[in-house]
Amino acid sequence: MTSSRSNEPDLTREKTNKSYSFDKVRGWRRYRILRPGRGVYHDVKRRLPYYWSDITDALTYRVIASTVRMYFVNLLPALAYTLDMYRRTGEFYGVNEALFSSALAAMVFSILGAQPLTIVGITGLISLFNFTIYDIIKIYDVSIYPQFMCWAGIWAAIFHWLVAIFNLCDYMRYVTDFSSESFGMYVGIIYIIKGVEELVNEFSIEGNTAGYLSCIIAILYFGTIYSLEKLGSSTIWKPWFRGILADYAYVFGTVFWTGFTHIPGNLKTAHISRVPISQAFHPTQPRSWVVDFWKLDVKWMFVALPFGFLIMLLFYYDHNVSSLTAQARQFPLKKPGGFHWDFFLLGCTTFVASVLGLPMPNGLVPQAPVHTDSLTIYETHLKIIPTSEGEDTEIRAPIVEATAVVEQRVSHFLMGLALIGTMTGPLLIVLHTMPSAVFAGVFFVVGWGSIESNGILQKFIFLMSENRFIQRDEPILTVHRRKICFYIGLQILGVTVTVAISQTISAIGFPVLIIALIPLRSLLMPRWFTLKELQVLDDLTATNEAVLASLGGAPALPSSSRAEGWGQERRRSESRHGVPRQRVGSIHL
Amino acid sequence: MTSSRSNEPDLTREKTNKSYSFDKVRGWRRYRILRPGRGVYHDVKRRLPYYWSDITDALTYRVIASTVRMYFVNLLPALAYTLDMYRRTGEFYGVNEALFSSALAAMVFSILGAQPLTIVGITGLISLFNFTIYDIIKIYDVSIYPQFMCWAGIWAAIFHWLVAIFNLCDYMRYVTDFSSESFGMYVGIIYIIKGVEELVNEFSIEGNTAGYLSCIIAILYFGTIYSLEKLGSSTIWKPWFRGILADYAYVFGTVFWTGFTHIPGNLKTAHISRVPISQAFHPTQPRSWVVDFWKLDVKWMFVALPFGFLIMLLFYYDHNVSSLTAQARQFPLKKPGGFHWDFFLLGCTTFVASVLGLPMPNGLVPQAPVHTDSLTIYETHLKIIPTSEGEDTEIRAPIVEATAVVEQRVSHFLMGLALIGTMTGPLLIVLHTMPSAVFAGVFFVVGWGSIESNGILQKFIFLMSENRFIQRDEPILTVHRRKICFYIGLQILGVTVTVAISQTISAIGFPVLIIALIPLRSLLMPRWFTLKELQVLDDLTATNEAVLASLGGAPALPSSSRAEGWGQERRRSESRHGVPRQRVGSIHL
Repeated sequence: MTSSRSNEPDLTREKTNKSYSFDKVRGWRRYRILRPGRGVYHDVKRRLPYYWSDITDALTYRVIASTVRMYFVNLLPALAYTLDMYRRTGEFYGVNEALFSSALAAMVFSILGAQPLTIVGITGLISLFNFTIYDIIKIYDVSIYPQFMCWAGIWAAIFHWLVAIFNLCDYMRYVTDFSSESFGMYVGIIYIIKGVEELVNEFSIEGNTAGYLSCIIAILYFGTIYSLEKLGSSTIWKPWFRGILADYAYVFGTVFWTGFTHIPGNLKTAHISRVPISQAFHPTQPRSWVVDFWKLDVKWMFVALPFGFLIMLLFYYDHNVSSLTAQARQFPLKKPGGFHWDFFLLGCTTFVASVLGLPMPNGLVPQAPVHTDSLTIYETHLKIIPTSEGEDTEIRAPIVEATAVVEQRVSHFLMGLALIGTMTGPLLIVLHTMPSAVFAGVFFVVGWGSIESNGILQKFIFLMSENRFIQRDEPILTVHRRKICFYIGLQILGVTVTVAISQTISAIGFPVLIIALIPLRSLLMPRWFTLKELQVLDDLTATNEAVLASLGGAPALPSSSRAEGWGQERRRSESRHGVPRQRVGSIHL
Repeated sequence: MTSSRSNEPDLTREKTNKSYSFDKVRGWRRYRILRPGRGVYHDVKRRLPYYWSDITDALTYRVIASTVRMYFVNLLPALAYTLDMYRRTGEFYGVNEALFSSALAAMVFSILGAQPLTIVGITGLISLFNFTIYDIIKIYDVSIYPQFMCWAGIWAAIFHWLVAIFNLCDYMRYVTDFSSESFGMYVGIIYIIKGVEELVNEFSIEGNTAGYLSCIIAILYFGTIYSLEKLGSSTIWKPWFRGILADYAYVFGTVFWTGFTHIPGNLKTAHISRVPISQAFHPTQPRSWVVDFWKLDVKWMFVALPFGFLIMLLFYYDHNVSSLTAQARQFPLKKPGGFHWDFFLLGCTTFVASVLGLPMPNGLVPQAPVHTDSLTIYETHLKIIPTSEGEDTEIRAPIVEATAVVEQRVSHFLMGLALIGTMTGPLLIVLHTMPSAVFAGVFFVVGWGSIESNGILQKFIFLMSENRFIQRDEPILTVHRRKICFYIGLQILGVTVTVAISQTISAIGFPVLIIALIPLRSLLMPRWFTLKELQVLDDLTATNEAVLASLGGAPALPSSSRAEGWGQERRRSESRHGVPRQRVGSIHL
């Protein structure tokens, strides 16, 4: 196996890791669906022994920094999406629903999850789903929207449980960077579109003055966070001070720009819009928390079934990729994952959220790795590269090493408590002081983070660069330029089609497109590219040993020699610059 | 001499170069003021033989790129300052005066100047001077302002001629980076303050909507030009394409953002303010071009004398530093300079501008080196630094070499013609389409360019950086940190005091402060710093052999050994990264 990282393999873990696999078995035992519950069982068995240490390991400063950072990184986009959903679902989903849903997810996954590092909350995609369904339902009878959404969620929950029990999460190990980069790019573009929409909305609701002021705030908020996070990875000042800048960039930026809009005078009189709030602990609409789903026409219950399936498809990819990135190979993780169990749990939260009329939470793709990053102890080392130019001319480069991760579930739990706290009256009023423009800024930061570090853009820049300045040992130089164009061309095509569909009423179909990239990659692309080319251009997304244990081991990709050939670009880059630090939204899959 | 650059010295030039000096003569001949006209005579004698080649050398593409770039870089800030002056001098100086003055200066210096590379035009400092004098005169009798300015200019012209004839420009050779960096920082800060003032004005004149929109345009204009110029010095795309981006960044940015403000809808209805124009070829005020300066009270004529002296002091530093930077050491210039003759000419343009009631033109500090840069042929070479890490791991760095400069006077002349063209009715109407917000953007670009590359900021960043990542052969490492703090502390003190004074009615006194930095540096600082420290931290501003010829040779600084000890930082950086390319506003003195 690919246990190249741990030099002294833990024998017991090794045994547990290998106990769940379908690769070397024969007969009926080969078939995943004939052995229901096997994945869930092994996930629990493998992960449970670490439970106590998940609490005792948490007694370090990093857990505090992580809690604060994740609170902002989780809450701000969730609120941003809620603002959008609120307007576009006839004000059905409001701030109270969003906070309740986020808090519910945080509680369930921090206490019961097998992968407590995976942050679960409200994504832009579920917001897209919810208002697209609203647009569809509106055509027939807008009054049944709450019940219909509830049924779609119930079906989705059922499909979740089926997938988890029949061990179907295993197929996530076939996900490569080909599709996850495309997904990251898609998410980034959607985020930026949402940011622009938020600003456009400001113009139409509050008028031009508020609109222009909001644009300024969004641009400068973006500039603030971006610069603080860049400073955090520079070599200016001492490491601890840089660390504070990076850890609390969102806190500084949000507090500063929220305060800025309250300066009396021109700024205050511009009347920019702020987070709409309603009575604490009550649903936004005058209803009881439990949706009266039993009152829906039976016909509509079954119409909701395909919608539920599509939600499950979305969550299958979105949630599991979140878990993969939260446990990506650049983090030196020791504790194993548990995809089946977590997906089962996600079915439960989906069910509860549906019945209570909340937006359904799932894994947050751009934010998930940020949690692990905020818990990682990085050390910036000095790398001296002697040159042949004589004495004292060696090159001194910083190289970042991830020495350990504080693997625990307390930061996730505390973040959940903070979310519950935010649901109370006084803190809702604090929320109300925040201008919507800040959320547009959040969209730009997270969206651009996802695009800037994306492999598609990196390969595009490579193609555009002057060849002579490219280091000769770049593995990508061994691939013909035409092939690189073809490869990123396929990715860009996938992204474009998905983005385009998201702007129409067929938006709910986009998970099918994203999922379709996996078989395209594993079945068709080996015919168009040689193995060597694919090994340079692509990489398996699930390579962390801890992760693969839960997915039944490394995949047998067509034409794949299980060799160490994959991830050449990454390994070269790590040997040169160290591990890339995770900015919010950046996906180094 | 410091002729380290030219390996095969031209013997005739060598002779001419040495013929003007006061260093090795004895008796009364040592005294500059006893030999009037010697500098002017030698300047003409030295420079005249190159006149024909100044025209024939101009037949290359670079002259076109240079003309376009300089037209924008000269015109935009001039107009920006004029907007400011217009409002703050009772609308005496308008667009027509600014264009006339710029065109006059371009014509005179391109045809008659000994240093046709030095772009002469309207600076922010003369604008500051003009409206500060307006504020002072307003206290007594605002109606005499035109005549009073005229007399101040006439006195200034007389002082110019005296300085030129008595060879006093020679003292410019004592200028070191200590004072010219301070001056560059001062200019940069003043530019940015002006940009902010321009935006504040938009709020008070046109209201909040226009104000906020103007802020957005200024910020994005800044972003556009900054990114295009950064791209120009990257290794993306082919060198010729990068060259176009850098050469025409201002054209693209200005055309795009001007067009943007004309998009019908919210943008058009925001009514942001645009360049105010009046009838072509007529003064802004209803007056004849010649100011009736003979009608002024004799008392006031003499009150104008100290003002004239201060203007001369400002131009002495500002204009000559422009010429020094336009002919700085990083440009491989072949043709000699002529400071005395040019300063004499500047007296003439000052006189004409005064009599016609124009703002007085002088050398543009941030723009001057840009002209030479736009005429320089850069070649980006590949530098391979072998490392000891084995095969194919060498470091491939781009190194920029300035191979030649198209030294001619045609681009300056054509730019002047373009300015005259702009004075005509149809083009004035084109000017009128430009929003003031673009000028705020210009201020930010030029101002930040002057700050970003400034030695003060560079040393500050060095002090803030983590020591272990600094290359061991950095000469600055040999200086104690306390001494570096002291050195930039003195600079920052000088800048702060000058900026503070510029905001008050004593603003006209600031040239005294700037000039005072020169004796501070050459008389006092050698007592506080060792020669070795000064050689690392400071550098002579005038080191180009072609320049020193006109200034009477390299200076005998106190405690200076004429050794090659100066400019260590620069030489190290050039050997590593090559010559820095000149962005507008960046002063690599």
